[in-house]
Amino acid sequence: MSLAERVLNGERLALARLLTLIENETPEGLEALAAIYSHTGRAHRVGVTGAPGTGKSTLVNQLALHLRRAGDEAPTVAIVAVDPSSPFSGGAILGDRIRMRDLAGDRGVFIRSMASRGALGGVARATAAIVEALDAAGFDIIIIETVGAGQAEVDIARTAHTTVVVDAPGLGDDVQAIKAGILEIADVLVVNKSDLPGAENTLRALRSALRLAHPQAREEEGEAVWVPPVLATVATRGEGIGELAAAIGKHRSHLLGSGQMAAREEARVRSELEALLREHLMRRFLSAQPDGRFDAVVQKVLARELAPTEAIRRLLEEQDEG
Amino acid sequence: MSLAERVLNGERLALARLLTLIENETPEGLEALAAIYSHTGRAHRVGVTGAPGTGKSTLVNQLALHLRRAGDEAPTVAIVAVDPSSPFSGGAILGDRIRMRDLAGDRGVFIRSMASRGALGGVARATAAIVEALDAAGFDIIIIETVGAGQAEVDIARTAHTTVVVDAPGLGDDVQAIKAGILEIADVLVVNKSDLPGAENTLRALRSALRLAHPQAREEEGEAVWVPPVLATVATRGEGIGELAAAIGKHRSHLLGSGQMAAREEARVRSELEALLREHLMRRFLSAQPDGRFDAVVQKVLARELAPTEAIRRLLEEQDEG
Repeated sequence: MSLAERVLNGERLALARLLTLIENETPEGLEALAAIYSHTGRAHRVGVTGAPGTGKSTLVNQLALHLRRAGDEAPTVAIVAVDPSSPFSGGAILGDRIRMRDLAGDRGVFIRSMASRGALGGVARATAAIVEALDAAGFDIIIIETVGAGQAEVDIARTAHTTVVVDAPGLGDDVQAIKAGILEIADVLVVNKSDLPGAENTLRALRSALRLAHPQAREEEGEAVWVPPVLATVATRGEGIGELAAAIGKHRSHLLGSGQMAAREEARVRSELEALLREHLMRRFLSAQPDGRFDAVVQKVLARELAPTEAIRRLLEEQDEG
Repeated sequence: MSLAERVLNGERLALARLLTLIENETPEGLEALAAIYSHTGRAHRVGVTGAPGTGKSTLVNQLALHLRRAGDEAPTVAIVAVDPSSPFSGGAILGDRIRMRDLAGDRGVFIRSMASRGALGGVARATAAIVEALDAAGFDIIIIETVGAGQAEVDIARTAHTTVVVDAPGLGDDVQAIKAGILEIADVLVVNKSDLPGAENTLRALRSALRLAHPQAREEEGEAVWVPPVLATVATRGEGIGELAAAIGKHRSHLLGSGQMAAREEARVRSELEALLREHLMRRFLSAQPDGRFDAVVQKVLARELAPTEAIRRLLEEQDEG
């Protein structure tokens, strides 16, 4: 049986191997992914993001445990933990170990940590491919957890169907500035560690920021507007996790009922294809360059003899003539 | 006089206008930048990054004030505040206002806040161009401040000559994981808010992490190894700022003396050119596509009839044949 067939057959070791091949961008991995691609499109993708210190990993852990406790009807869950700021894998590996204690032995759960791919954009590309593979492998819910609140994390969160933004009391002033941007991508807001002092303030601040963003729940071009709920959780004690799971389910129903699911899927596929194209065009361009030509241009720019935009113009003109 | 000439002439309004033109990627802006590019290469570029809540903005503010107090010899300072996570500019504008109180009226200081350029990679590209313009305009020190600890921020920090990573006591466990990656890019480490409880622990943790990364200061291929100093500051009271300025100066001397400055400059120019190429190749590719062809491929991938990698292969083959 081919690797692709074994993955579709539910073999966990084959899946783990496929994910590694994909992460390393090997031709074998990409071929296997193409072979199973027609099986994708069934999973609900949940992005979980927020600033460091909010307890996201524990929250994701608890959410997975809760979802798995629904008896025979329980959805299978895959977790992809992305840590773009930690290219040296220590954090990612540690995260896996902590999770294993609670979720080990449950064949309905699959956990994968990803370290950085080095280059900007690499994490997003590899994550997208890994999520496709987990989708094809039949997981019902795929949770994509990102640490931090930078552009890369926001872009990854945007590829999800439902984006959960996690906050916590007492994280300092900068966090307020981050909220401004991140509120726009949140479908569900969570104040975790809500047993800490200041939780009421954080909840109130988020709710009033939301009221500014959504002055009223109204009908727009026939579509009901989704107003993100603000939930309080204490992940370490499992408090509020049921409400979080319910909010995610409700948001999924909203997306499907309003036609917004199709729009989100199209935007996701489009940006995924554009990222792939950009990478392939670049590789082709560099491999078509005469030996040392690109290096020579780098040296001219370094010597300030040539401005970067002028350098690009010349390189592209040469390609057209060549 | 042309805009480029007015910028070289030290006109602040012309500079502000040029930066806006560059940020919006207008042809006029790129042309003016190319015209002044031969004047770049003199500024020392200092990246300041770290998790939210560490008080980076106040620290950068105080550092600029300190540098400007050196009398007739004082360097001129430009600050570029990049907030990739806040595409909606509220945070960035607020940041400017807070800074204006202390630095307003000093013609040797120029402050520019940048909101996100929307797409991943856009922030890095725009920031690089803005820094070139400030360099050509004659600022001696350019401080590039990024909020957060994601890949985009790390990539932006990497373009600096000296990267300052800011930490603070009591930011929670996730921050520990981030440190693993971010230690690798730090030339100078700062524990700000060092009057808070736990500061000693944070300092100790950073120092021992550093000892692991740099087992001993030694000579390697004739180059002295730089061991990042760990400094304690209380930016709100101006404590430790002189030491920070001195450490940055010492690092610059180290880079120049060891030949590492040239290596860093080459790596920066190379990655800048690659990012520009990627963008231009993509634009050319899309504009050469028959109307609706890319959309049709997006629809096929959406319908799961075509895997993304297969879609890219077909598009590239069509281009070769066309």
